Amino acid sequence: MTILSPEFRSTVLIEALPYLKQFYGKTIVVKYGGNAMIHEELKMSVMQDIALLHFVGIRPILVHGGGPEISSMMKRMGHQPTFVGGLRVTDAETMEIVEMVLAGKTNKGIVSLLAQQGARAVGLCGKDASLVVAQQMPCDEGDLGFVGEVTTVYPEILNLLSEQGYIPVVSSVAVGPNGESYNVNADHVAGHIAAAMGAAKLIVLTDVEGLYRDFSDKSSLIQRMNVKDAEDMIADGSADRGMIPKLEACITAVRGGVIAAHMIDGRQPHSLLIEIFTNTGIGTMITA
Amino acid sequence: MTILSPEFRSTVLIEALPYLKQFYGKTIVVKYGGNAMIHEELKMSVMQDIALLHFVGIRPILVHGGGPEISSMMKRMGHQPTFVGGLRVTDAETMEIVEMVLAGKTNKGIVSLLAQQGARAVGLCGKDASLVVAQQMPCDEGDLGFVGEVTTVYPEILNLLSEQGYIPVVSSVAVGPNGESYNVNADHVAGHIAAAMGAAKLIVLTDVEGLYRDFSDKSSLIQRMNVKDAEDMIADGSADRGMIPKLEACITAVRGGVIAAHMIDGRQPHSLLIEIFTNTGIGTMITA
Amino acid sequence: MTILSPEFRSTVLIEALPYLKQFYGKTIVVKYGGNAMIHEELKMSVMQDIALLHFVGIRPILVHGGGPEISSMMKRMGHQPTFVGGLRVTDAETMEIVEMVLAGKTNKGIVSLLAQQGARAVGLCGKDASLVVAQQMPCDEGDLGFVGEVTTVYPEILNLLSEQGYIPVVSSVAVGPNGESYNVNADHVAGHIAAAMGAAKLIVLTDVEGLYRDFSDKSSLIQRMNVKDAEDMIADGSADRGMIPKLEACITAVRGGVIAAHMIDGRQPHSLLIEIFTNTGIGTMITA
Amino acid sequence: MTILSPEFRSTVLIEALPYLKQFYGKTIVVKYGGNAMIHEELKMSVMQDIALLHFVGIRPILVHGGGPEISSMMKRMGHQPTFVGGLRVTDAETMEIVEMVLAGKTNKGIVSLLAQQGARAVGLCGKDASLVVAQQMPCDEGDLGFVGEVTTVYPEILNLLSEQGYIPVVSSVAVGPNGESYNVNADHVAGHIAAAMGAAKLIVLTDVEGLYRDFSDKSSLIQRMNVKDAEDMIADGSADRGMIPKLEACITAVRGGVIAAHMIDGRQPHSLLIEIFTNTGIGTMITA
Amino acid sequence: MTILSPEFRSTVLIEALPYLKQFYGKTIVVKYGGNAMIHEELKMSVMQDIALLHFVGIRPILVHGGGPEISSMMKRMGHQPTFVGGLRVTDAETMEIVEMVLAGKTNKGIVSLLAQQGARAVGLCGKDASLVVAQQMPCDEGDLGFVGEVTTVYPEILNLLSEQGYIPVVSSVAVGPNGESYNVNADHVAGHIAAAMGAAKLIVLTDVEGLYRDFSDKSSLIQRMNVKDAEDMIADGSADRGMIPKLEACITAVRGGVIAAHMIDGRQPHSLLIEIFTNTGIGTMITA
Amino acid sequence: MTILSPEFRSTVLIEALPYLKQFYGKTIVVKYGGNAMIHEELKMSVMQDIALLHFVGIRPILVHGGGPEISSMMKRMGHQPTFVGGLRVTDAETMEIVEMVLAGKTNKGIVSLLAQQGARAVGLCGKDASLVVAQQMPCDEGDLGFVGEVTTVYPEILNLLSEQGYIPVVSSVAVGPNGESYNVNADHVAGHIAAAMGAAKLIVLTDVEGLYRDFSDKSSLIQRMNVKDAEDMIADGSADRGMIPKLEACITAVRGGVIAAHMIDGRQPHSLLIEIFTNTGIGTMITA
Repeated sequence: MTILSPEFRSTVLIEALPYLKQFYGKTIVVKYGGNAMIHEELKMSVMQDIALLHFVGIRPILVHGGGPEISSMMKRMGHQPTFVGGLRVTDAETMEIVEMVLAGKTNKGIVSLLAQQGARAVGLCGKDASLVVAQQMPCDEGDLGFVGEVTTVYPEILNLLSEQGYIPVVSSVAVGPNGESYNVNADHVAGHIAAAMGAAKLIVLTDVEGLYRDFSDKSSLIQRMNVKDAEDMIADGSADRGMIPKLEACITAVRGGVIAAHMIDGRQPHSLLIEIFTNTGIGTMITA
Repeated sequence: MTILSPEFRSTVLIEALPYLKQFYGKTIVVKYGGNAMIHEELKMSVMQDIALLHFVGIRPILVHGGGPEISSMMKRMGHQPTFVGGLRVTDAETMEIVEMVLAGKTNKGIVSLLAQQGARAVGLCGKDASLVVAQQMPCDEGDLGFVGEVTTVYPEILNLLSEQGYIPVVSSVAVGPNGESYNVNADHVAGHIAAAMGAAKLIVLTDVEGLYRDFSDKSSLIQRMNVKDAEDMIADGSADRGMIPKLEACITAVRGGVIAAHMIDGRQPHSLLIEIFTNTGIGTMITA
Repeated sequence: MTILSPEFRSTVLIEALPYLKQFYGKTIVVKYGGNAMIHEELKMSVMQDIALLHFVGIRPILVHGGGPEISSMMKRMGHQPTFVGGLRVTDAETMEIVEMVLAGKTNKGIVSLLAQQGARAVGLCGKDASLVVAQQMPCDEGDLGFVGEVTTVYPEILNLLSEQGYIPVVSSVAVGPNGESYNVNADHVAGHIAAAMGAAKLIVLTDVEGLYRDFSDKSSLIQRMNVKDAEDMIADGSADRGMIPKLEACITAVRGGVIAAHMIDGRQPHSLLIEIFTNTGIGTMITA
Repeated sequence: MTILSPEFRSTVLIEALPYLKQFYGKTIVVKYGGNAMIHEELKMSVMQDIALLHFVGIRPILVHGGGPEISSMMKRMGHQPTFVGGLRVTDAETMEIVEMVLAGKTNKGIVSLLAQQGARAVGLCGKDASLVVAQQMPCDEGDLGFVGEVTTVYPEILNLLSEQGYIPVVSSVAVGPNGESYNVNADHVAGHIAAAMGAAKLIVLTDVEGLYRDFSDKSSLIQRMNVKDAEDMIADGSADRGMIPKLEACITAVRGGVIAAHMIDGRQPHSLLIEIFTNTGIGTMITA
Repeated sequence: MTILSPEFRSTVLIEALPYLKQFYGKTIVVKYGGNAMIHEELKMSVMQDIALLHFVGIRPILVHGGGPEISSMMKRMGHQPTFVGGLRVTDAETMEIVEMVLAGKTNKGIVSLLAQQGARAVGLCGKDASLVVAQQMPCDEGDLGFVGEVTTVYPEILNLLSEQGYIPVVSSVAVGPNGESYNVNADHVAGHIAAAMGAAKLIVLTDVEGLYRDFSDKSSLIQRMNVKDAEDMIADGSADRGMIPKLEACITAVRGGVIAAHMIDGRQPHSLLIEIFTNTGIGTMITA
Repeated sequence: MTILSPEFRSTVLIEALPYLKQFYGKTIVVKYGGNAMIHEELKMSVMQDIALLHFVGIRPILVHGGGPEISSMMKRMGHQPTFVGGLRVTDAETMEIVEMVLAGKTNKGIVSLLAQQGARAVGLCGKDASLVVAQQMPCDEGDLGFVGEVTTVYPEILNLLSEQGYIPVVSSVAVGPNGESYNVNADHVAGHIAAAMGAAKLIVLTDVEGLYRDFSDKSSLIQRMNVKDAEDMIADGSADRGMIPKLEACITAVRGGVIAAHMIDGRQPHSLLIEIFTNTGIGTMITA
């Protein structure tokens, strides 16, 4: 960056001014996952972005799943996956591994990375202070075990930590009515938390550029759509299967009062900052 | 319990009154471990005790290590332990397992058990908000890897949660100067946290009745000793080896301003309540 | 109590846990009177109960009348009672004695007893901060003098003291529109205060076991009834005359939003604790 | 007052401005007693003065004894006084009467009068929240019974009430180490409270113009003296006996940090206002 | 004033008691202008009145225009006034002078005078914190330049300063949508601020005794009228032209929820105090 | 700026991260003057910089003098300057003009420019809340009139406004002991305010690159010096005369506890941001 003159740099800062104003003191929920969780450089880029949001007076909340670490840990432990109706069953042993990886390894690893950026983070799972409550996911074709769906979010602990200057990092393990753990979709957790917090934005990091009207046609990227159209894309089957949980999270958030929900390309360094601090934004934005 | 008359019950409550007064609004740090973490009934008994402390206006903080779950998980993952100078080395892979078990499985399991008692708990490890900072344990005979010793405790997050009515549950994983994880002795963590919080009491649950002057002579149980004598017992080698970290934790706490530190028998149901709410107490008490 | 083992004691405490949870931070108004105000041992028992409620995080408010002390003081001063329509008239001189006994002797005596239990109490009458406002009780058959009925309760001073950790003790002297004193029924005062405070419970101590469906038949004790039935018992004359003001206080409280109102046997030591901390409770409970 | 023109009235208000500034938000302790407590017109005048102090942002605290009401009540109850070394003994029965009159009748009567002036007052005695603690007054010539001397003042309850806009009214009954009541000199109570509150002024209402250098010479009124000279007047016996407790109260206050202590003529209507709001003041002022 | 006895003075203070009670903690907006801004003695009298209001716990807000200082400054700068439809045009140069005189000279001069009375004042214009927003005054007969009419008041800064014990002094310069300055009528500013603050009173100082039903008949002074009649007097042209902006300010205030609006004679020393602290008041009062 | 890729922009933001951390919640006092107050583009650039500081959580305070506007206004008013010992005398008429221009025109103009950047600013002079107190500048060769030197700063009003999210803008008019106005050097005001506020930085905008060791040698720019050396440069006469007040302001600030004081080139757009958000900084920095 040494080629950039100081004048140039100051101009870039000044161009961020309207966005700084807009989001001052606001909550932004970021769903972190995919390649951005795997490649060291992308990881660091996201952590810098989150720390920067924090230090300019925005209140970020990070929600994450486990990505490939769960599968690799299960393999290491010689665990054989079973399926019901094409879906992987989370039996008790799998749930134990999921919880250890998500709430133990991944979650605390993110906390540590944020600390290295100078930010104080606190790692939580849905069981802490009963933050995310779930019930068993119903399935016509059999018992999916500890696969859960979110029923309630109690956001008090997030408000407390956020107001006191901590960055909450939330893993996608939920608690059931009898204290049992559930493996819930991290996109869905992010969507529900964004709604419960009355967030200004939900930003879902993906491994694609955004949502395509036709997934096979890279020129069909949707820049902006309303929530009704998003619901229709799910209903009529035109949405890419892999994007459906992310799309659902955005819908949950916007239907719950969040002003804008975004699916952006987590493979691009600092895509979070680009989305928040530029005029055009990137990826796909869903609004009411 | 149906044989107890209501009159009898009320008398028992009234007898607790002086202790309720004494500890109202005070912090009590409990080191949880040993058999009390293994047997279902004892587990439940400790959780009830902690919840009761919370609901009578005392502020409990629970610190735990991992017990036998770490070894069993390592075995499941085919990990071979290595030793330096008779001490087990915590290599990177071991540290990963330790962290997953402690901060993921054990910690969140305790949080869930407390929730079932109606208390809101939040599970932390030493990396959250840089609560417990450690450095590598020096060892003349080789590199112990990620075995750490506590250097600093930043108790702000504990104060915040405790004041707002949450019970903090802390696992013995610490953070190093570069964000790396350290496996630290849970007794030591409890001792340092008690000192940093200015706790009224540290209570260490053990699998023995308390400290014996002569471990082979069960009649030599020490009921009360001062911190100087405790230090001498370590210095002159008369303390039972297995009790040394617990004794050190008590010394750290009392030297740090904690009024009384206790080693009590965690195998006895509700030994916490007996210690706090009766005149004689149980186990061994160390004071300044 | 030395025959009770520590294990037994801790079990009793644990059995109180659900009730500790239920009433944590809640207000409980206790109407104190009858034998419990006369016999030294019962007195002490009630004071211990109130102090215990305070130290486990409940907010008790004590309301009392004067009991036999007023009559005895009047006799000592050679005062001859007069009657109108069978009711004792409170002339100016009587009112002066009532006020001295209630607000001076009885009230401050209770404050002192609570202080001996380690609790900070503040004694008030209805004139302090205009806490209880009354007007003259209408009577077709003549002027009852300074017998009053409660018209308004201004509970701000109770909230202030209670929130700051003081136990308010209120005597049944009220203030009229011109600053004059009124002798009001202490049960009624307790009922109105419970309603104005949005208390969780009103507990009226009596000298009987509770309310009987048929007073002459001791087997007809009512354990639970709804407020409508309570009103009917007054309307149809089936309630024992002596219990009517207590019944009215319970009705006022429940109609004013209090969850449960109780008439319990004040002759039984620690009946307050038994009512609050056991499953079955004692005496008669009235709910909406 | 109709002869006073509005212009004249506004000038009087304006002349009060420097004093309004000086005492804004400050605490002034007033010892109320003597004729000002007996004659209806003087009573009303003091109550108006106190209410005015309150409404211009000053924080008054009123301390009172019982005056002639105690003797008259004792006579009504046929009580015979006994003496030890020339001092009246306060036996248990006398103490009961003193407490009833002071804390019941007089105290609540003042509260009511202040309420009629639109101010919210709360009546306390030294037993409430252990405000005034005393021990038995030593006497070489015998046991004085429940005559006490002040040992400690716990002013928290006064601060709380005063900050929340209530006027505390305190009667001179103190509490002993075992909860027993003591009859203490009201001047002394006022002096100790003024010191404990860090009051800006103590004003003692008397039935004389102030302190005379020679009591028999009305021209020898002292307008201002320092605390050392005041102590000397007691030591050398030159102070009028009747003024000694008042002088002691002023000394206690000034030695305890109160800026100025005054003995003024309570027989003069609105002497409080004249003292506080005029340049010359009235009576005798004692300063460090 | 030395002829006034202390007794007399205290009686005057006591007569102010009901008004002290009534306005304790309330906001009173004073429109300052006319002769009271020109003659040194009247100036001082108003400043004393405002300081007194402040020190007895009332919250005064002072609003002022510029009076003759603007014209004199324009003359000194050789500026020639222009007119449109009989109204003076505020061109850019005039506006610059208006702003300098109002926000620079007059405003800070008042702040300084209040400081000399011991009160902490802060001088603001409508541009500070966007307190008073205006738009160009429409005029059929041409462009009036920077003559504005109030569109919005953002009173947060006034609340902040007032609550913290500062007296806000506001000059009648407003800010337009593009940051430009507008010369607005100070009476109107006072009326809008009184409404936005929910003031208890608006008091407009004038150079006449009040509002006359017939301006030529000095015996026709209106002492009290309702807002509907005030509106009619403007509509039917019976109000004196010079009083119309003041009348409009009163109407704005009362229609906006202010309890009473007054036009009083600023030529009379301490007319503010006379209005507020006497039974009859002076001048003309408009209420809903 | 359209040629800058989003990636580039985000990198620039990320590079600001360490500085955002460092100054989060800190106070930075900016002395605004010179060319930056004259040229429209530079003006706008400074306002954007100040607004940006505000929106990233820094607390800027702007201090300004009058620049060329005062001279031009004096000329317009036909005022002839007089001199004493080579120094311009501020007679009463001049002071009036200075105050009008500084506190009326310049100050409120800056407030308006900041408002257009979305920030809420409040314009003050040293008379408001007695913020800056001065006395007459002593001069051996005659009376300089209302030329003052700062004696005390009362920063409470700045703390209040700053904590509540307002940007204080302070003009260099001070108040004397009798309420009179003084014309004080704006650099000095900034230095005293920085010290009184415990600011993290004082930044003085100048019309040169910084301080030169030898003013005629542009290659002798001092990048960093300690306060002792700065004092020596004044004492030995080696400092450029025009820079002396700025140097003195920096010395006052650093001696008063400010961490770093800077003289930077106000002619360079966004020099404030460059100083604060880059590694090298610009201009001359003085530290302890």
